[in-house]
Amino acid sequence: MDNNKNQLDETKQEIMQATYDAIQQHGYAGLTIQSIADNFGKSKAVLHYHYDTKEDLLAAFLDYLLSEFGETIQIEGLSSPEEQLLSLVDLLLYGSDDTASEEIRQMQIALLEVQSQSPHKPLYCEQFTQIYHRLSDLFAEIIKRGMREGVFREVDADLTAQHILFIIVGGQLNQHTTNLETDPDKIRKIVTSQVLPSIKK
Amino acid sequence: MDNNKNQLDETKQEIMQATYDAIQQHGYAGLTIQSIADNFGKSKAVLHYHYDTKEDLLAAFLDYLLSEFGETIQIEGLSSPEEQLLSLVDLLLYGSDDTASEEIRQMQIALLEVQSQSPHKPLYCEQFTQIYHRLSDLFAEIIKRGMREGVFREVDADLTAQHILFIIVGGQLNQHTTNLETDPDKIRKIVTSQVLPSIKK
Repeated sequence: MDNNKNQLDETKQEIMQATYDAIQQHGYAGLTIQSIADNFGKSKAVLHYHYDTKEDLLAAFLDYLLSEFGETIQIEGLSSPEEQLLSLVDLLLYGSDDTASEEIRQMQIALLEVQSQSPHKPLYCEQFTQIYHRLSDLFAEIIKRGMREGVFREVDADLTAQHILFIIVGGQLNQHTTNLETDPDKIRKIVTSQVLPSIKK
Repeated sequence: MDNNKNQLDETKQEIMQATYDAIQQHGYAGLTIQSIADNFGKSKAVLHYHYDTKEDLLAAFLDYLLSEFGETIQIEGLSSPEEQLLSLVDLLLYGSDDTASEEIRQMQIALLEVQSQSPHKPLYCEQFTQIYHRLSDLFAEIIKRGMREGVFREVDADLTAQHILFIIVGGQLNQHTTNLETDPDKIRKIVTSQVLPSIKK
């Protein structure tokens, strides 16, 4: 029984990795069940057994990204709330240490395309709701810790969390859809020079 | 000669209005040259005479929106830099006074879909570059006026302008792609309660 479950998880994990690779190769527009199957190494039938449509598979992929993200963030070990906050900002802007910036860029562009479909696709909308909710909660928890420890001012933690999140996603939208010289460093600078000073005591 | 030019302008103006109406009816995904022709009242051939592809037409439409926006903003008559700044924020969040909120919402969602294509479509990318550039400049000019008049602190005007713009577009992205209760009022509150206080003397 447990053995079966592990095998199922392993298959799903392999499908998610194949989806990640296919997005890197083809972007969202060129992504097909076939292109995922090519990276998966098993038959298309196995993919269809687990996911009825490309939409189902991508919704599962967004869920997978969020859980992977949850495993990557390590804010507990960091000493100060300010360090925790910047570490979360940096993870969103630059990805984890071992990810190439071009890989991050490709994935952010693909996710932007998926996200732009959310107004018409409830499955995507539900996943992005979870993602924003989780990220917003994380920022708010860090800000509340800073307030408890007396290093941050008494601010509206939830509103400040959304403020930071909007700067990051709005900045990335600008970065990927214009020729302006917006890059992660500039987005980070807005947070460090214009938001942090109004939070810190 | 002038008469010809006026007639040309009038035709283009009619095409742009038909595009606007077709987007309201069908969204970006359902937008076709035929659906625009249906609202235009003249033949598809006239559309194809002016624009080779849907991409050409939409790029012209983005250009048209920017020039329409330029005619709508009236910041000169307003008394204080703070009023000017909020008036620009409100125009981006709520549209002009006579636009229904559902109409604004539909257009913002369609523009988001067009924008998500920008990484692969240089014509769109060029237009969004112009749009962001113009908006960013407008915010920066207002902030500089406030600094000159001694009502705003000496801040980095360009960075602050982008900061406000990123909050607005990031907030709208969140609003349209999640089930969270983000609305224009919340986005406005972030600007008024968390950005303005750090600019004002």
